[in-house]
Amino acid sequence: MSKIFVDACFGKETPYTPVWMMRQAGRYLPEYMKVRAEAGNFLNLCHNPKMACEVTLQPVDIIGVDAAILFSDILVIPDEMGMDLEFVAGEGPKFNDPIKTEADIDKLIGGEEAASKLTYVYDTIKLIKKELAEDKALIGFTGAPWTLATYMIEGEGTKTYNICKKMMYSNPELLHKILAKVTEVVKLYMQKQIEAGIDVVQIFDSWAAAIEPSKYDEFSWKYMVEIADYLKEKFPHIPIIMFPKGIPAFLDKVYGNFDVFGVDWSTPMALAKEKLGDRYVLQGNMEPCRLYSKEETTKCVEALQNIMQGKRHIFNLGHGILPDVSVENAKHFINECHRVSKKS
Amino acid sequence: MSKIFVDACFGKETPYTPVWMMRQAGRYLPEYMKVRAEAGNFLNLCHNPKMACEVTLQPVDIIGVDAAILFSDILVIPDEMGMDLEFVAGEGPKFNDPIKTEADIDKLIGGEEAASKLTYVYDTIKLIKKELAEDKALIGFTGAPWTLATYMIEGEGTKTYNICKKMMYSNPELLHKILAKVTEVVKLYMQKQIEAGIDVVQIFDSWAAAIEPSKYDEFSWKYMVEIADYLKEKFPHIPIIMFPKGIPAFLDKVYGNFDVFGVDWSTPMALAKEKLGDRYVLQGNMEPCRLYSKEETTKCVEALQNIMQGKRHIFNLGHGILPDVSVENAKHFINECHRVSKKS
Repeated sequence: MSKIFVDACFGKETPYTPVWMMRQAGRYLPEYMKVRAEAGNFLNLCHNPKMACEVTLQPVDIIGVDAAILFSDILVIPDEMGMDLEFVAGEGPKFNDPIKTEADIDKLIGGEEAASKLTYVYDTIKLIKKELAEDKALIGFTGAPWTLATYMIEGEGTKTYNICKKMMYSNPELLHKILAKVTEVVKLYMQKQIEAGIDVVQIFDSWAAAIEPSKYDEFSWKYMVEIADYLKEKFPHIPIIMFPKGIPAFLDKVYGNFDVFGVDWSTPMALAKEKLGDRYVLQGNMEPCRLYSKEETTKCVEALQNIMQGKRHIFNLGHGILPDVSVENAKHFINECHRVSKKS
Repeated sequence: MSKIFVDACFGKETPYTPVWMMRQAGRYLPEYMKVRAEAGNFLNLCHNPKMACEVTLQPVDIIGVDAAILFSDILVIPDEMGMDLEFVAGEGPKFNDPIKTEADIDKLIGGEEAASKLTYVYDTIKLIKKELAEDKALIGFTGAPWTLATYMIEGEGTKTYNICKKMMYSNPELLHKILAKVTEVVKLYMQKQIEAGIDVVQIFDSWAAAIEPSKYDEFSWKYMVEIADYLKEKFPHIPIIMFPKGIPAFLDKVYGNFDVFGVDWSTPMALAKEKLGDRYVLQGNMEPCRLYSKEETTKCVEALQNIMQGKRHIFNLGHGILPDVSVENAKHFINECHRVSKKS
């Protein structure tokens, strides 16, 4: 059975434009909060295939999205590379021993050994695939090497990225060594996600905007392209979505062997279409806070449909859904995307 | 005596391209830290004209910048509107009673009454003008109404701006009422700064990037333009610098009666020149973290000079200088700007 979401990723005509939401398996859903409470903490939920499968499927059943996205966290990768991830309540992720030296990098578990430790992710995927309706797609994902490296170097989330940047400008070789080691793990991690059953890959470069335009290719994009090349050679039938958050100033420079470009909400869709629409299917890009108002949601969905005309497009938010959005408004978004794009 | 910085703001030819740095009176300077410690806390420093004058002048003497910028904080405005600003150590600014309703807005002190309470700012300006060398300019500043409103509504700094956004999308009239009231105070505040002696105005829209492109004019830019119009009519000889951080995606839409557009580091200077260079003098835009490396600083200064060719340009960083930059490297930046742009 063909999956409308996979077809749309390859730019094929579909009966309507499919839609999903970043963070759709999340805190705005009471059903998610229930499982999350049972798990005790966020990391337990990532580590438990049965529970992770359950929350992955919730938005498909409750909200009616066209694709499920694996429930996990981008930081399981450095965790299994030996960095000992902790989620401190109210503070977010922490690594107590951030990377400072070449010796720190050498100590990290790399390649096949690290990728093989993520069995709970592959087990989750296998469970989901048993339960997910055949016409729905399952998206697997990873953080971009740069985005992962920011946490590995800073030890936590940061506003200024000053430790990473100091390394970028004064010791770029060290930063490249980290990025190369993470890239090797990510390649094998995504290969194993595909072998376990995911239908689509999304690479999240959540902190793309932390790098100045003239350095972005060197420190982030080229590693994402390397991962895409590796996967495309082995699995040409698996679409790849690239989502760099916050690079509207240099869309002209985007290149590489992937299928879908994820447009964040800071980038006008018309600009993305002009610069990239011929080369890539575009995903996005409603400002997630529009979900606070049904009227503003409808206006935005209609404006996006008007720009994209139901061609080479996947509806999504331009960033993750926020926890205080109502389930009713989230459903309204999905319904409106289907309504405006349905071919009669 | 003509001030090179003021001439440059009006696009006149100058013997070299002037330079200053956002946050140049700041924590990277040991001399600043000393005064800051004597003041006890940040707000005391803003309230004390003698100390505020001293730290304003430090970077002129120590680093050699071409303009001083008044030492103050954008949040003194809502503070004097009656919102009771607090700086909690390690957490940043706090308003304990954020604005939620129309009644909360009506309670705020507005217009002339609020602007008249900021005497310590005007006194600081008068002191600085007595001590500042005649060929150096003094920049006064304000936060944009939108940026100020984010703190007034959220009560503190925020990552998601979800309270403001909920208001923007579900109750835009209320948000406009706040913005209009703040705009009235800002107009008179800047008028009084000019009357006290500042040579140039800069309007900081630090959180411009929090608004989606299609809503930016409505909720921020048009209020900044209103302020600029008000000031230009009264004081055409005072240049106005607009600095909206993070709007590279829609530079085409920039309009209004001001002189200099401040280019943040996420916006390639060549793009800003292409879109705005004919209409505005451009200020910026080195990534502040380049200051960690003298070599990377020089490369960037040379690249900027190469693009701007010493015409209609003011050197600056693309955001504030960080506290862990060395004084030596900051001086190197200033020297390099002068070296590459000096007309022989």
